[in-house]
Amino acid sequence: MFESAELGHVVSKAEYARAQPKLRESLLEAQYDLIEKKSFSLLVLIGGVDGAGKGETVNVLNEWMDPRHIHTHAHGAPSEDEASRPPRWRFWQTLPPRGKIGIFFGSWYTQPIVQRVYGQTRDAELDESLEQIVRFEHMLHDERVVLLKLWFHLGKQQQKKRLRAISRDKHTRWRVTEQDWKHFGLYDQFREVSERSLRRTSTAEAPWRVIEGLDARYRSLTAGQHVLDTIREHLDTPRAQATPHAHHPKPEATNLIAKLEQPRAPKRYDDELETLQGKLAVLTRHKKFRKAGVVAVFEGVDAAGKGGAIRRITQAIDARYYRIHPVAAPSEEERAQPYLWRFWRHVPPRGRLAIFDRSWYGRVLVERVEGFCSEADWSRAYAEINDYEEQLHDHGLLVVKFWLQIDAKEQLRRFRERQATGFKRFKITAEDWRNRKKWKDYEIAACDMFDRTSTEIAPWTLVPANDKRTARLRVLSTLAERIERALDEA
Amino acid sequence: MFESAELGHVVSKAEYARAQPKLRESLLEAQYDLIEKKSFSLLVLIGGVDGAGKGETVNVLNEWMDPRHIHTHAHGAPSEDEASRPPRWRFWQTLPPRGKIGIFFGSWYTQPIVQRVYGQTRDAELDESLEQIVRFEHMLHDERVVLLKLWFHLGKQQQKKRLRAISRDKHTRWRVTEQDWKHFGLYDQFREVSERSLRRTSTAEAPWRVIEGLDARYRSLTAGQHVLDTIREHLDTPRAQATPHAHHPKPEATNLIAKLEQPRAPKRYDDELETLQGKLAVLTRHKKFRKAGVVAVFEGVDAAGKGGAIRRITQAIDARYYRIHPVAAPSEEERAQPYLWRFWRHVPPRGRLAIFDRSWYGRVLVERVEGFCSEADWSRAYAEINDYEEQLHDHGLLVVKFWLQIDAKEQLRRFRERQATGFKRFKITAEDWRNRKKWKDYEIAACDMFDRTSTEIAPWTLVPANDKRTARLRVLSTLAERIERALDEA
Repeated sequence: MFESAELGHVVSKAEYARAQPKLRESLLEAQYDLIEKKSFSLLVLIGGVDGAGKGETVNVLNEWMDPRHIHTHAHGAPSEDEASRPPRWRFWQTLPPRGKIGIFFGSWYTQPIVQRVYGQTRDAELDESLEQIVRFEHMLHDERVVLLKLWFHLGKQQQKKRLRAISRDKHTRWRVTEQDWKHFGLYDQFREVSERSLRRTSTAEAPWRVIEGLDARYRSLTAGQHVLDTIREHLDTPRAQATPHAHHPKPEATNLIAKLEQPRAPKRYDDELETLQGKLAVLTRHKKFRKAGVVAVFEGVDAAGKGGAIRRITQAIDARYYRIHPVAAPSEEERAQPYLWRFWRHVPPRGRLAIFDRSWYGRVLVERVEGFCSEADWSRAYAEINDYEEQLHDHGLLVVKFWLQIDAKEQLRRFRERQATGFKRFKITAEDWRNRKKWKDYEIAACDMFDRTSTEIAPWTLVPANDKRTARLRVLSTLAERIERALDEA
Repeated sequence: MFESAELGHVVSKAEYARAQPKLRESLLEAQYDLIEKKSFSLLVLIGGVDGAGKGETVNVLNEWMDPRHIHTHAHGAPSEDEASRPPRWRFWQTLPPRGKIGIFFGSWYTQPIVQRVYGQTRDAELDESLEQIVRFEHMLHDERVVLLKLWFHLGKQQQKKRLRAISRDKHTRWRVTEQDWKHFGLYDQFREVSERSLRRTSTAEAPWRVIEGLDARYRSLTAGQHVLDTIREHLDTPRAQATPHAHHPKPEATNLIAKLEQPRAPKRYDDELETLQGKLAVLTRHKKFRKAGVVAVFEGVDAAGKGGAIRRITQAIDARYYRIHPVAAPSEEERAQPYLWRFWRHVPPRGRLAIFDRSWYGRVLVERVEGFCSEADWSRAYAEINDYEEQLHDHGLLVVKFWLQIDAKEQLRRFRERQATGFKRFKITAEDWRNRKKWKDYEIAACDMFDRTSTEIAPWTLVPANDKRTARLRVLSTLAERIERALDEA
C-alpha cells in the first residue's frame, strides 16, 4: 500500500511554476460550481504520518481555493461536551452542508488506529471499528457527502529526517511535539496498523489516496489534483435518479398491528399512575443515572396519544433533565445535511433524557409512504438507523422506542372530537385526513419497520392505545423497567 | 421589595381545585396561539431563594403547558466550551426561537449577585453589571424576546424551615446541597444584594415579579397566571408598525469617506507582504495568543477587495486556527432569533480567529439603506453592537474592523472586469448594479456607522482600496500591530 509512496516523488520548481496556476484556477472554478449547484458536500479527511505535510497541505488547500467556503476542523482530544456524547457526535456536528467543503484534520480513523498501536485493542476490535466506518462512510456517500481520504506517507528514515528538520527551524519548531517523537518510536506498528486500516476501508466510493509527503511541491499538486478530480467527477456525473415507488406490497393479513389486542381500561389508573411516576422519579434521580441517559422515541398513527403519554413521563421528571424534540419538517439548515444530522444534533449528554415525538423513523414511514424519498433511500435507512442506535447504546444511552396504535374507528372518533373541542382544533389538519386514507400503506411500512429495526439493544414496544390510560401505564412501566434493569447492570 | 412576599399567602385546596383547571386550559390555549403566530418568544427567568419552589414551579409549568414547545435550561457552572466564550454566549445559544417558550433556571443575574455576596465585587461593579443587563434585556425586548422574570422569595425563618423539610423527605433530600446551607448562612447579604439587583433591573418592559414561595398552591397559580398574562398581553397588543424610512439625510460634503486619499501602489509589495505574513504567523502561534483570540470584521463597498484581503491573512495562519464566516441572508433558524444571534453563534473560543466577511453591521448598512428593517430597529443597533463588541473585548478577544473603500470609478472598472473574466463572473450580480445606484445612501450609512461604533476598544480602520496591494498591506499591518500590542499588554 505504501511502497509507491516511498519512491521519492519530486516536482521541480519549473514544473511547479507551470502547473500550479492552472490547477488553482481549475480548483476555484470547481469550488464555485459546487457552491452554485449545492448538489453535494465534499469532505476531505487528512491522515498519515507526522511530519508528512498534513498541516501544510490543509493550508495550501485553503490558500488555493476560496477559504470562506471551506470549514477546517481539527479533531484532537475531545472537549468536555464532546466526551459526554457518543464518539461520532462531534464529527456530525461539524459536517459541511451541501455546497461547502469540509476538511477534517484528525477523523474517525484516529482513535481506532492509535488504540490498536498502543495495544488497547486487538485486531478483531480494530476490524469491527473499521467495518463500522465503512458502513458510516457508505451512508455519507448515499447522503451526498463525498469523501476524499488523503493519507500522507513518509518512509521511516524520511520521517526521522523531516521531524529533525522541522524541529531545527524556529518558525516550525512549535509543530513537533513530544508525542510526535513517541509515535516515531512506534513507526513500524503504526505502519502495520495503518496499512490494515487503509486496506479495509478503501471502498469504491471512498478509496484512500496515499501521497508521498517528502516533497512539498509534489504533495501540494497531488492533493490539489485529487480535490479537483473528486469535485469534477461528482459534478459531472449526476446522481442516478431514483425510480418512483411503483409497487404496492400487500399487507399480510396477520401482521403485528392487525394482531394487536386492545385491552380494557385499567381499574386503578390513578394509583398505578402515581406509583409508576414515583418509580420513574426515583430512578432518574439515582446517582447511577447521571452516567447513563435515555433516548426515547414515540411513533404511531395520528391521534394515538403520543403527546399525552409523553406528558405523563415528563410530569415525573425534573424539567432540567429532559428535553422534548417534536419532529416536523426539517429546517433549511437541516435539509442541507444527511437526514440523520438533525437527530444527532439532539443526542443528550449523559444523565439526561431526550424524548423524540416522531423521529428518524419518519424516513421509513411518512417519507416512504408519501414518496418524499426514493425507494433506494428508505431501503438503506433501516441499517443506517440500526447503526445509529447502536452508537447511542454503546455510549451507555438507553434507546426506548414506542409505537402507539389505535384502530381506524377510534381514530375517527378522536378526529371528530378534536374538531368539536375548541382548543384541540389546532391538532387536526387536512393532512391528518389525507394520511388516514393511506392507513394500509402506513401499516405495511410500520410492520416492515418493526421487523427490521426491533433489535436486542433497541426493541420496539407496541402499545395498544385505544384506551389512553392503559397506553400511558404501559409506556411508563416499560420505560421504568428498562431504566431499572440498566442501572442494576451498571 | 420583598415585604409583600412575606405575608403568608396561602391558597386553599378548594380554591386551587376551582382555579387550576381553568388556568391550565387558558395557558395551553395561549401557548398554541403563540406557536401559531410566532410573533415573539417568551423567556421566563427563574430566580430567588433556595427552597422557595423554583424547581417545582418549572416542573409545574412544563406539566400545565405542552412541554414539547418549552425549552428548559439549567445554567449552572459553565462547561469547558462555555467558559471559553464570553459569559453571555451560553444564554444566546439557548434562546428560544419565536413561537417557543424558554425557561432559564439560573440566568445572567446569578453571577453578579453571587459575586457581590461573596465580596468579590463592590457595589459599583454590581451596578455596572446590572446596567449592562438592563441594556441587554431592552435589546431582547426590541427583538421580540418577551421576558418574564420570576423571583421566588422566603423569609429567613421560612427558608430555614423549608430547607429542613426538604432534607427530611427521602424523595426530595437530593435537592438540598451543602451550598444551599452555606447560602442560607448568608441570607441577609443575599437579601440585600438581591433587593438592589431587582430594583435596578425592574424596567417597564421586563419588571420582576416577586412570588412568595411558602405555599405550593399559591406559588404555582401565581406563576402560571403571570405566564398567561404575559403571553396574552403581547399577543393582543401587536407591535407598533415601523414607520417607513422617509427622510433622506444629505451627506456632508466632507465626510470621512470623501476625504479618504487613495495612495499609490507600494514599491516593494512582495517583500512587504512576506514580512507582514511572517509576523502574523509568529504572533498567532505565540503562547500568549492561546489565551486571546481575534474577531475580525470586513465591510466595504462591493468589489472593494474584501475576499482578497482576507486570503492574505489566512495564508499566514494555520488553517486549524481560523474560521471565515461569509455573511449572506440569514437562514430560517436565524430569522427566528434576534439579529445578533447568528453572530454570537460564531464567537470563537480562545486562541482562535473568526473572520467575518460582512457582519452584524449589515443592520446599519444594507438593512438601513434597503429598508429591510425599520428606522427604530437600525437606530438602536449602534448601541447594541457596541455592547456586543464590549463583551467580546472584556473576554480578551480583539475586535478588529476594516472598511475597504474604492471610489465609484474604480468600482465600475472592477465590475466590468469581472463580467469579462470567465471564473469571476459569478462574483457580479444584478444586485451589485442596484447597490451602485445607492452609492450616496451607503456612504451616509457608513459614515454614521463610523461615528457611532468606532470605539476605543474596537476602532474602525478605513482602508483606501483603489490599489489592492496597498489595501492588503494596510490590513495585514493593522492586524499584526493590534495583536502585537495586545500580547505585549497581556
